[in-house]
Amino acid sequence: MVSSIKRFIIGRPLKSAELGEQKLNKTKALAILSSDALSSVAYGPEQILIVLVTVGTAAFWYSIPIAFGVLLLLSTLILSYRQIIFAYPHGGGAYVVSKSNLGINAGLVAGGSLLVDYILTVAVSVSAGTDAITAAFPALHDVNVEIAVLFVILITILNLRGVTESASVLAYPVYLFVLALFLLIGTGIFKIATGSASPGVHAGIGTPAAGVSLFILLRAFASGSSALTGVEAISNAIPNFKDPAPSNAAKTLLLMGTLLAVLLSGIVFLAYYFGISPRAEVTVVSQIAEETFGRNVLYFFTQGTTALILILAANTGYSAFPLLAVNLAKDKFIPRMFLVRGDRLGYSNGIITLGAASIALIIAFHAETEHLIPLYAVGVFVPFTLSQTGMMVKWLREKPKGWIPKFLINTVGAFTSMVVTVIFFLTKLPQVWPILVFLPVIIYLFHRIRKHYDAVGEQLRIATCERAVPIEGNVIIVPVAGITHVVENSLNYAKSLGPSQLMAVYIAFEREDEHKFEEKWKKWQPDVRLVTLHSHYRSIINPLAKFIDIVEHKASESNYRVTVVIPQFIPKKGWENILHNQSSLLIRTFLLYRKNVVVSTVPYHLKK
Amino acid sequence: MVSSIKRFIIGRPLKSAELGEQKLNKTKALAILSSDALSSVAYGPEQILIVLVTVGTAAFWYSIPIAFGVLLLLSTLILSYRQIIFAYPHGGGAYVVSKSNLGINAGLVAGGSLLVDYILTVAVSVSAGTDAITAAFPALHDVNVEIAVLFVILITILNLRGVTESASVLAYPVYLFVLALFLLIGTGIFKIATGSASPGVHAGIGTPAAGVSLFILLRAFASGSSALTGVEAISNAIPNFKDPAPSNAAKTLLLMGTLLAVLLSGIVFLAYYFGISPRAEVTVVSQIAEETFGRNVLYFFTQGTTALILILAANTGYSAFPLLAVNLAKDKFIPRMFLVRGDRLGYSNGIITLGAASIALIIAFHAETEHLIPLYAVGVFVPFTLSQTGMMVKWLREKPKGWIPKFLINTVGAFTSMVVTVIFFLTKLPQVWPILVFLPVIIYLFHRIRKHYDAVGEQLRIATCERAVPIEGNVIIVPVAGITHVVENSLNYAKSLGPSQLMAVYIAFEREDEHKFEEKWKKWQPDVRLVTLHSHYRSIINPLAKFIDIVEHKASESNYRVTVVIPQFIPKKGWENILHNQSSLLIRTFLLYRKNVVVSTVPYHLKK
Repeated sequence: MVSSIKRFIIGRPLKSAELGEQKLNKTKALAILSSDALSSVAYGPEQILIVLVTVGTAAFWYSIPIAFGVLLLLSTLILSYRQIIFAYPHGGGAYVVSKSNLGINAGLVAGGSLLVDYILTVAVSVSAGTDAITAAFPALHDVNVEIAVLFVILITILNLRGVTESASVLAYPVYLFVLALFLLIGTGIFKIATGSASPGVHAGIGTPAAGVSLFILLRAFASGSSALTGVEAISNAIPNFKDPAPSNAAKTLLLMGTLLAVLLSGIVFLAYYFGISPRAEVTVVSQIAEETFGRNVLYFFTQGTTALILILAANTGYSAFPLLAVNLAKDKFIPRMFLVRGDRLGYSNGIITLGAASIALIIAFHAETEHLIPLYAVGVFVPFTLSQTGMMVKWLREKPKGWIPKFLINTVGAFTSMVVTVIFFLTKLPQVWPILVFLPVIIYLFHRIRKHYDAVGEQLRIATCERAVPIEGNVIIVPVAGITHVVENSLNYAKSLGPSQLMAVYIAFEREDEHKFEEKWKKWQPDVRLVTLHSHYRSIINPLAKFIDIVEHKASESNYRVTVVIPQFIPKKGWENILHNQSSLLIRTFLLYRKNVVVSTVPYHLKK
Repeated sequence: MVSSIKRFIIGRPLKSAELGEQKLNKTKALAILSSDALSSVAYGPEQILIVLVTVGTAAFWYSIPIAFGVLLLLSTLILSYRQIIFAYPHGGGAYVVSKSNLGINAGLVAGGSLLVDYILTVAVSVSAGTDAITAAFPALHDVNVEIAVLFVILITILNLRGVTESASVLAYPVYLFVLALFLLIGTGIFKIATGSASPGVHAGIGTPAAGVSLFILLRAFASGSSALTGVEAISNAIPNFKDPAPSNAAKTLLLMGTLLAVLLSGIVFLAYYFGISPRAEVTVVSQIAEETFGRNVLYFFTQGTTALILILAANTGYSAFPLLAVNLAKDKFIPRMFLVRGDRLGYSNGIITLGAASIALIIAFHAETEHLIPLYAVGVFVPFTLSQTGMMVKWLREKPKGWIPKFLINTVGAFTSMVVTVIFFLTKLPQVWPILVFLPVIIYLFHRIRKHYDAVGEQLRIATCERAVPIEGNVIIVPVAGITHVVENSLNYAKSLGPSQLMAVYIAFEREDEHKFEEKWKKWQPDVRLVTLHSHYRSIINPLAKFIDIVEHKASESNYRVTVVIPQFIPKKGWENILHNQSSLLIRTFLLYRKNVVVSTVPYHLKK
């Protein structure tokens, strides 16, 4: 039944050979991998204005040069990641690039930040999208957290079904959002050009504004850079592309960068022209849409697609997290289970872990985004900085033909990312300090896990000629609880294992019971030696364990192995197990993990 | 570590031989078994007045005759249970009495009601006690549920430590409460006799009051009978008494009945004399104490001990529930685990089940008692009625010397209990209907469980001469995942089991991998046959299960048994298990419950 529910939710299992069919073409890849980056224009420009408004509306014109700065940063990031795609065609993004050029710890810092960052991506974008919905339907405000959790579950299921299917579903909202913003920007500029839109109050570019300092401008720039979260997703996901993967990925990246640049500049320009001030209740995009369209159907279309893309931005996390986890697991820094492909060929353990972790974050933070966003942005810019520094090192080391412009691009990118990171730490320490605690902890864990896997691997590896000493024979112990068919069945089995010494062990709680049982046994199984142990404390495991220790000690001297044969009857229906003390399960688990004995369970299946 | 925490909380384990030392003398038994009954005087008289106040204060004098009615009911209950103690010296109370005289279903109705009733006892009395505390410290009101849960946990731990120890701790509050009420009643009556207390407004006994109907009086009587909950506890707990258990129990019962009668009459009389009206914020006992003592230290002493005994009334449930569960488990109506004595010789499974169930109730009802009390009272009077009817049948059937007065006592008791039960159903159906749903369900479950145990017993029983056919030999299957020491270890073991056919099974996910592995294997273990299975869907269990089916079918034809030998390496530290896919655990569980094969696990303990 569980299995048929699973089939219904995630679909029939796919054969490994069907993997190729699950790859993405460019159109679908753009939809699935760029929703995070593109959705950032819904809040990036606003972040700039929120900083500038602390000085005054006269400073709003600075948003234009700051936007240029952000666009420049975007260009260096896009160009740099394009270089990364070709240099590392098997994907892995910041983790792989940092690891191979800057060493393992830099790689782990990048990988650790990104792992957490993808969880934050999901939590933040779903919460933001839910806010947009509950803003429209205030009655739902009390169940904010529940709605957000429901969305995460839905997106998790979509991703468990597989990337192709989720791409089909997710492509529409992304393209509709792009369409809506193009309509908005196009209409706005057309109206301005034809003079049919009245400009808002805005200071001319270059007007001096009192109180503007370099610090404020840098802070506005850093805030605006939050619009760039998500641009690294494509370089992580190259293995998901159809062949030729790297060139398809590079084209998709350029297309995404162009779209992002156009949308970003358009929004910043219109906001400036209409003199829009950030307000708590109404977003900047919403204000622009109202100025441009009025409150008509196009306004609601813009708002609706914005809400939708914010929720779907979570999907970028679902594409990137499992692939990053695969890279870390291949290098043995996280558990091996992240390497396993599920029924639908996705890395289901990664998908489920991501879903569960982001649900935990949403519940812990009551789906309130404001405390998570700075952490989220730092988590992006740390790996940005590391990967571009890594590329610098690569060019310097390899010096291929025409490396100097490439090196310069990465240098500019690395420097700017680092500045943004530093500004975040300087201006938002109360929100971003957890990353300083978290990163050392996770890197310690990564190393700890690696050390364990290395130790295990070494102990399991077969050394060339050395062979284990063959076993001379077996000592077989059958714990018995009564004179029943189950015990008979187990004794029959034990007798068939030769060469061996067989003994039955009975654990008595009461003295009188002991003698009675011994006599009955003699009549029933005169050829099987019975050992009776008395348990003062009504425990079965302790006397049995002590007895096994003694037997094992003697057996190992003559190269005999000890086998404990456990009789177990299996009820016909699963629920009936709760009606029976699970002594055999307890004994089995205890012996297996604590003692060096073979544990054999002889099932006796009941027929009714 | 888990073990030493357990030692710290519940104490060192006790030998079975120490059971005698855990028995109760009369003083401790009175404290431990009567807190429920005695604490009822804190709310019983109030329940009567709450009904009468609906007619008017002129009707308050009816509380005197009603109290006489309740005292009469109390006397018949005490006398009847005294008769039960001697008739059934091994305890069991209503369940045993009803079962042996009225048949199994009557017994199960009584037993089922009482099981739930003890859970309600704990939930109701702890919640009521918590209310008394948070009424004194209103700041704690928001954490009501948490406090109540904490008390339940504390009482559960006390009971896990064992009855003697909990008796020592619990004896003081009970005796202090009795002392406080004696002081209160004594001072009150002394002041009235010496004329130093001014009487409140109260109508003389016999004054006609408009609107008083038989229905109202019966309802007030039923409400007042809630003061009698808990009187059956002693008859259930006879096995906990020191020898001679029945006569000690009977003496304790009489003492408890006398105390209860004195306290009840005193409180009812003082309430009537001072003309006290029930109020939502202040309890009747608190009003009496204020009239009698004024707001001095004695007043607070009375209030404090009342709060304490309400919480400790829960302990009655802890004495009675596990013993009732033992009786039901002996008759195979509930799981066998309730028969097992824990480390401290208490029936720990019963204690823990009771604690967990009442915590669930407290959380579900937000520690609000008003919805639980009617259910609780019905749950008591149903078994009262059944057990007394059972005694009637017993006297009629056996007719021992001087049976007629005994029969009359039980007849009066049975009739009155039944009337109280009927009144509860008539006047409080909206609160007590769940019991009408619950009882049929639990009785169905009881029978279902019994049927299962009977079926199992029959299948396990060794028929006189019939012997199982001996096993000719074994087919041994070793699933292998690679060429490692773990596999080598398992193969070595498998080779030592003769006579047998041995094969290794490798499950390949990739075609190329398959051939490579086969070649390596030929070099490594040329004498062990390797079967390679291809898994299209990346599942290990499905191909293995299909293969085992084929092998098992062939083996059973020639009386061979199939053994699956599973290689498993055991990491040195427990936490490290999460780093390894638990394939062997999954395979083991699946094969054991689904297939008729012996499952042997060969552990390979890692050294670092």
